[in-house]
Amino acid sequence: MEQGWAAEALESLHYIGKRELHEHGHVVLEKVMGDELDVVNNARVSFNGESLELTDRDKGLINFLMKNRHASPFEAIVFRLDVRAPLFVVREWERHRIASYNEESARYSVIKEDFYVPAPEYVREQHGKPGAYYFEPIKDSAVVSDTIYHIDRCQREAFRTYNYLLDQGVAKEVARTVLPVGMFSRFKVTMNLRSLLNFLSLRNHEHAQQEIRDYAVAVEELVTEQIPFIMECWNTHNRQPI
Amino acid sequence: MEQGWAAEALESLHYIGKRELHEHGHVVLEKVMGDELDVVNNARVSFNGESLELTDRDKGLINFLMKNRHASPFEAIVFRLDVRAPLFVVREWERHRIASYNEESARYSVIKEDFYVPAPEYVREQHGKPGAYYFEPIKDSAVVSDTIYHIDRCQREAFRTYNYLLDQGVAKEVARTVLPVGMFSRFKVTMNLRSLLNFLSLRNHEHAQQEIRDYAVAVEELVTEQIPFIMECWNTHNRQPI
Amino acid sequence: MEQGWAAEALESLHYIGKRELHEHGHVVLEKVMGDELDVVNNARVSFNGESLELTDRDKGLINFLMKNRHASPFEAIVFRLDVRAPLFVVREWERHRIASYNEESARYSVIKEDFYVPAPEYVREQHGKPGAYYFEPIKDSAVVSDTIYHIDRCQREAFRTYNYLLDQGVAKEVARTVLPVGMFSRFKVTMNLRSLLNFLSLRNHEHAQQEIRDYAVAVEELVTEQIPFIMECWNTHNRQPI
Amino acid sequence: MEQGWAAEALESLHYIGKRELHEHGHVVLEKVMGDELDVVNNARVSFNGESLELTDRDKGLINFLMKNRHASPFEAIVFRLDVRAPLFVVREWERHRIASYNEESARYSVIKEDFYVPAPEYVREQHGKPGAYYFEPIKDSAVVSDTIYHIDRCQREAFRTYNYLLDQGVAKEVARTVLPVGMFSRFKVTMNLRSLLNFLSLRNHEHAQQEIRDYAVAVEELVTEQIPFIMECWNTHNRQPI
Repeated sequence: MEQGWAAEALESLHYIGKRELHEHGHVVLEKVMGDELDVVNNARVSFNGESLELTDRDKGLINFLMKNRHASPFEAIVFRLDVRAPLFVVREWERHRIASYNEESARYSVIKEDFYVPAPEYVREQHGKPGAYYFEPIKDSAVVSDTIYHIDRCQREAFRTYNYLLDQGVAKEVARTVLPVGMFSRFKVTMNLRSLLNFLSLRNHEHAQQEIRDYAVAVEELVTEQIPFIMECWNTHNRQPI
Repeated sequence: MEQGWAAEALESLHYIGKRELHEHGHVVLEKVMGDELDVVNNARVSFNGESLELTDRDKGLINFLMKNRHASPFEAIVFRLDVRAPLFVVREWERHRIASYNEESARYSVIKEDFYVPAPEYVREQHGKPGAYYFEPIKDSAVVSDTIYHIDRCQREAFRTYNYLLDQGVAKEVARTVLPVGMFSRFKVTMNLRSLLNFLSLRNHEHAQQEIRDYAVAVEELVTEQIPFIMECWNTHNRQPI
Repeated sequence: MEQGWAAEALESLHYIGKRELHEHGHVVLEKVMGDELDVVNNARVSFNGESLELTDRDKGLINFLMKNRHASPFEAIVFRLDVRAPLFVVREWERHRIASYNEESARYSVIKEDFYVPAPEYVREQHGKPGAYYFEPIKDSAVVSDTIYHIDRCQREAFRTYNYLLDQGVAKEVARTVLPVGMFSRFKVTMNLRSLLNFLSLRNHEHAQQEIRDYAVAVEELVTEQIPFIMECWNTHNRQPI
Repeated sequence: MEQGWAAEALESLHYIGKRELHEHGHVVLEKVMGDELDVVNNARVSFNGESLELTDRDKGLINFLMKNRHASPFEAIVFRLDVRAPLFVVREWERHRIASYNEESARYSVIKEDFYVPAPEYVREQHGKPGAYYFEPIKDSAVVSDTIYHIDRCQREAFRTYNYLLDQGVAKEVARTVLPVGMFSRFKVTMNLRSLLNFLSLRNHEHAQQEIRDYAVAVEELVTEQIPFIMECWNTHNRQPI
């Protein structure tokens, strides 16, 4: 699968785990600071204790912290991710403020012609009423293929205009005006576990738009490999923010 | 000047001040909590004093606080703004994390066909080298009018496709994929003065893109009407973040 | 009741509401920005609507936002409080980071001899095991009065030493070393409703220390007078953070 | 030098660096996420580049970022510290809100009898006027030794009362009322580099109280060993917050 030059650049760097998704997208777990034992030892500062390995008693403590929303020890684990996603996904992600972001800039770099075109099962219609919307794949295959055609054509045309304007000498920051919300952008985000659980509670959720949910699922898989007990525990406690 | 339905809705609400810009855009100062005396009294908590009106001695204190970066008293003033701006402006704005945002959603509402088309003097070319770019209006009027034509045409076409997809029954959250970065979005932001000064130091700055700078200038004018002495003082101290 | 000079200074200022507690303490609601309608209108930005007065439909919306943890509209209401409390209460309070604080400084001002001595029913013993502690008033009245005697005597002696050191010309910042954790401090805090609900969920809670809970109860009363429907709604939804 | 049980517990854990100070105090650099190259690569996301090792060109970029307050890439480095310090130092430290804290709790654990007694050269007097105070060691050796005597005696007496109350069955959270502000507390803090530079700019500064400045100096030494070029660069740019 073609993943673009950003992904190629990544190949040569060390990272912990990676998921590719939505044709041009990825989630890379670049670095982690801390582990489940760190959560325990941050909590044990309260009563001046330390553990050297994760015991069953420590697991009981993690469970207790989660249940009673003693949240600060969970901030001791920090993740850095490298993400490439459609702009409408990036926009929702960056609303999560307890995190540090660095994103590709359309002022300083020429945007590569990668844009989101939904797979047939992602061409959805909306049902329900305000406050209780749900989405289902459109069944009429003619509508589906027509939709895909137009979403592809319109964005392709936008990039053509964008590149034309650049060729005319128009500044990148002006030419980008025509670029579509479906274009891919890339960012790095540093986020602690508490903030990440809040992200997952809202974005890996049936109310979230499917596209960002796919990203949240990828993040949750990568994170769960690092801290399986905490994530199991969080699921037991209904995936609530802490 | 046609300002769109959002602006019309606003007409009937109370607000403190308003600036219209970029054809479909606005900055409205909706509410303010606190005044210059509040900064003084928040500072005087340190030594348990209170002032009832802003004296010259109090002004000296404000100057001292600013100069020595005693920043927390400046967080005692809070502003709420209602803003309508092109998406590429909104994107830069929302990177300022010490603030509360609520934004128009393209998942839940149909986006009105308002998009940014630069005035002739806003059709810029980029000069300089990395780290020292600057921008100047393009002098060749044929290029300028051709650019305006294409930026208008391409976004008009994107909205046509968007509305076509909606008519076909495609969900709003899917159809928006084709919308351009130049489309207008509206948001409300609640921000304290310290965070706002940081915003102004970066966005009402020659390195900022002209379009967001125009918004920052409007914000600075509206804010200066409320707290003229503090803003004068901040300018004296080189508009640095505190 | 003697409330100290800080309270006297306050008398001459305008404020919205006040509760006195713990002999030398107070919670003053100084200012509020926004009301229940503002929460509604911040939420309606999502779909570009506005309300002019709080209707039943708007109340339904508030309920929906609370239930589904659409939290950002609740950040549109901001409170400023003036608080005087024992240092051990202030310490717990200031752990709430999404807020702005200005506090009396023992570097810059001489601390007045006000300290916390528990009323008889506040002389507690601890029961239960780690993770499930609970506290009950000590029943033995001799122990209670002895405890009160020693808590009073020891702090009185600390202030005597403090004042002696100041008289000897020792800097305030050095002399304060001997001051007790029971001494009163005063601070102003600016906090939005979302952060305040998180504060109340943890501090007006049976697991909180009774002394800070008393403060949280006072805050909740003052806030409820301003936004009764939202607070009723929050109680219905189990007083969870949003 | 006797460093207390907390320090002993630490001996058995892995850490990167350690400074002991103020008799019972320490600063331990427990973990670091990221390095100088990470700052570069976070910045290069803006224009979609990556570096594999820190070149002179990368150093130029770091210098440029610092000078122009492109601050977000510096948030890519995160530090975890374990600190033991007098309460009056802890109180100032914890006012830095962009950080995660876990602290020893006097509700849940019995506080060990470690308290701060100034060395002779730390017995200071205050000079100057409001806004321009400065501090100097008291020259009269009789006053100095008398001060040390009283600061020691008064806190010793407070701990005697504290332990007496505990022996009588009084709850720890009530008995702590008499403990002095000079008592040692221990906490872990996770803080990114940007927030840390702000901490250092204010606390390793001549206006800061000497005791917290000693801690800030220790932090700065430990951090500089990890990221020498960035710290050199920050000093060149006047140690301003970014």
